[in-house]
Amino acid sequence: MTAAHVLATYDIATHLPPPEAAEILAGEQSTGTFVRVPGESARLRERFGARVIEVTELPDDGLPPLPGAAGPPSGATTVPHRARVRIAFPLHNFGPSLPNLLAAVAGNLFELRELAAVRLVDLDLPSAFARRYPGPAFGVAGTRHLVGRPDGTLIGTIVKPGIGLDPDALRTLVRELARAGIDFIKDDELTANPPHAPLRDRVAVVTEELDKAARRTGRRTMYAFNITDDIDRLAAHHDLVRDAGGTCVMVCVQTVGPAGVAHLRRRSTLPIHGHRAMSGALLRSPQIGLGPVVFQKLARLVGVDQLHVGGVASKFYESDADVAASVRAVRTPLFDGYETLPVLSSGQHPGLAHRTYRLLGTTDLLVLAGGGIHAHPDGPADGVAAMRSAWHAAVTGESLDRRAARDRPLARALERFGA
Amino acid sequence: MTAAHVLATYDIATHLPPPEAAEILAGEQSTGTFVRVPGESARLRERFGARVIEVTELPDDGLPPLPGAAGPPSGATTVPHRARVRIAFPLHNFGPSLPNLLAAVAGNLFELRELAAVRLVDLDLPSAFARRYPGPAFGVAGTRHLVGRPDGTLIGTIVKPGIGLDPDALRTLVRELARAGIDFIKDDELTANPPHAPLRDRVAVVTEELDKAARRTGRRTMYAFNITDDIDRLAAHHDLVRDAGGTCVMVCVQTVGPAGVAHLRRRSTLPIHGHRAMSGALLRSPQIGLGPVVFQKLARLVGVDQLHVGGVASKFYESDADVAASVRAVRTPLFDGYETLPVLSSGQHPGLAHRTYRLLGTTDLLVLAGGGIHAHPDGPADGVAAMRSAWHAAVTGESLDRRAARDRPLARALERFGA
Repeated sequence: MTAAHVLATYDIATHLPPPEAAEILAGEQSTGTFVRVPGESARLRERFGARVIEVTELPDDGLPPLPGAAGPPSGATTVPHRARVRIAFPLHNFGPSLPNLLAAVAGNLFELRELAAVRLVDLDLPSAFARRYPGPAFGVAGTRHLVGRPDGTLIGTIVKPGIGLDPDALRTLVRELARAGIDFIKDDELTANPPHAPLRDRVAVVTEELDKAARRTGRRTMYAFNITDDIDRLAAHHDLVRDAGGTCVMVCVQTVGPAGVAHLRRRSTLPIHGHRAMSGALLRSPQIGLGPVVFQKLARLVGVDQLHVGGVASKFYESDADVAASVRAVRTPLFDGYETLPVLSSGQHPGLAHRTYRLLGTTDLLVLAGGGIHAHPDGPADGVAAMRSAWHAAVTGESLDRRAARDRPLARALERFGA
Repeated sequence: MTAAHVLATYDIATHLPPPEAAEILAGEQSTGTFVRVPGESARLRERFGARVIEVTELPDDGLPPLPGAAGPPSGATTVPHRARVRIAFPLHNFGPSLPNLLAAVAGNLFELRELAAVRLVDLDLPSAFARRYPGPAFGVAGTRHLVGRPDGTLIGTIVKPGIGLDPDALRTLVRELARAGIDFIKDDELTANPPHAPLRDRVAVVTEELDKAARRTGRRTMYAFNITDDIDRLAAHHDLVRDAGGTCVMVCVQTVGPAGVAHLRRRSTLPIHGHRAMSGALLRSPQIGLGPVVFQKLARLVGVDQLHVGGVASKFYESDADVAASVRAVRTPLFDGYETLPVLSSGQHPGLAHRTYRLLGTTDLLVLAGGGIHAHPDGPADGVAAMRSAWHAAVTGESLDRRAARDRPLARALERFGA
């Protein structure tokens, strides 16, 4: 790996000897086609060919081959080989352009018959990409600064119900949460600019309430307005939020596309909250698509300041170990920086604080409890208090039971959501 | 299904009774969260809730559950149920915005533990989407008009080697192909605007040669310049091609994202050639992601005039039946129109013309032979002649052998590539 190469790591399954399958992958994604053609000289292959750097056999995972995979040679074993393969792509094949990088390292290769499974699990990018894509403008420190919370876990919520709250109900909810000192509120990923609740109206109502609460409490809650939409509308939505004094915009990274986020980043003066809706389509299968490390590197590259990584004991498919690995990955420097704040969500509540802190060992987190705050038996303000109290206990080493014995909002939350 | 709803069809696997799993999916993607929250009134659910329209059991496919799937209740069978599920989403939940549509119909649902597999296989959109997204500006008829080929299969090729040809070699290749009367040439998806072969230089060389050839032959070959890049560069790349007299631009639909293509479409005055690099990551697994019908509908919606659909007997995973289904799907009217030309590629050569025509029964096709033209033993011009001759034979009902007996370029092609 040099400054002039991209290093891509794949987990593959194949009935060919893995080094041979790796060469086919490298050829397909650089100088080859299905037959040798005139002009594919040794010199051209030397200069532009992707090179197989490493092939490490992996144990069988027992999974059946993807559709269309070439079977074993007749008489051979029917279990495909599995291997981790590292391939170096010359940067000059595509230059530091994210869409063209993806066409090379994540393009036609997913379709190759020779591969019974193929997943891009890591991507090491040379610094030319950092020069093209400046990454998060705010990240962990910038988010903390805007929220006025220099340390401790940031506590947030999602507007619930995610769809259909009218402006008056939204106003009441935001008022109560902001007065309760919550750090962060976000729109649901399902509500961006729908006809029944236009972004413009939500921005007006929410910023007015946040201003009022800030005058009372001295702190301003960050609200991530979901500006996801056609790319031609992102800048105007962003400006609407900024001009009203909003301090954060949210986009669904997959539905606008990483290239769409990069477009927004060039125009944005606010933190970008990156939701991962639709990413499961690429990330969940162990046999195809992308690994979570790749997804978060792409999101950070294009400028996401706060990135969803699932949640402990969540309603989604990831195990706690998966979530811990994602948080570690997001907190690992990219180009010596590109610090993005990991966002935990999905089924989060006060009873999970200790388990989460034990697992992750950091408070550089934004923990979003939707139902876990709104459905508190005594209302959202007590929901916020319970979340903060549980996290304080977790970090100071006080048990949940002991803390709950002297903290009624927490005790009531544990009754409702369990511990 | 009404003008006010989007109808989404999923194939799911689940250990729950399928109607229950379908309700969970519909709830997650509209009004629900993991607990009932204040404000989630019956009235709100009635107005904004996604509704399960139909649940049809499917036979077991023998595939193991995706990671994180909830297992069977203790004592129950270990084989998950499979079902096709149709869900109606109120259009007013998101409005006719493609990225926000995707957050609803293809968002968090891929991550649900309750689903052991989940694939979005079809999507019926109300006409509000047609008003927002005008679709292909050229399509089949517009492409034929620009190429000057009102009927018959359009014959094209891909510049090979896909990477690394210098301008002089590219010039020679294009000259020979254009003089041989080829209808269409495209850049490889791996070559867009790399430092060693900038788009500007390729446009200058190629358009000069096409102009010269057109003066000799009276027909102008269409060349799809790969303008895939950061979204902020698409318009300038397009204008560069247009200003030089180019007649087509190409983008990788997945790597710029469908939203990126829609952005280009609003600025484009040329046909858009849609490459599908990276789409295999979403399409190949039968357990997750999107079905090909959904992919092509999204591509047509955002304005792709010519769309890759694989190829008969190709080097990729799709069977001939898969390719035939994709071609049929692309040729099925969307909003009574949105005609897009299906593009066949990958391992195509003259020996496949009869098989392809038998399978597809239409000549409204653009067939791209890369190696199948460039690697012709007597050079690319004979490669073009052999492709056209084979297709002429296929359509007129003449056998390949009979035709080859009186057609030397075809006979030589069959020797090289087989029949």
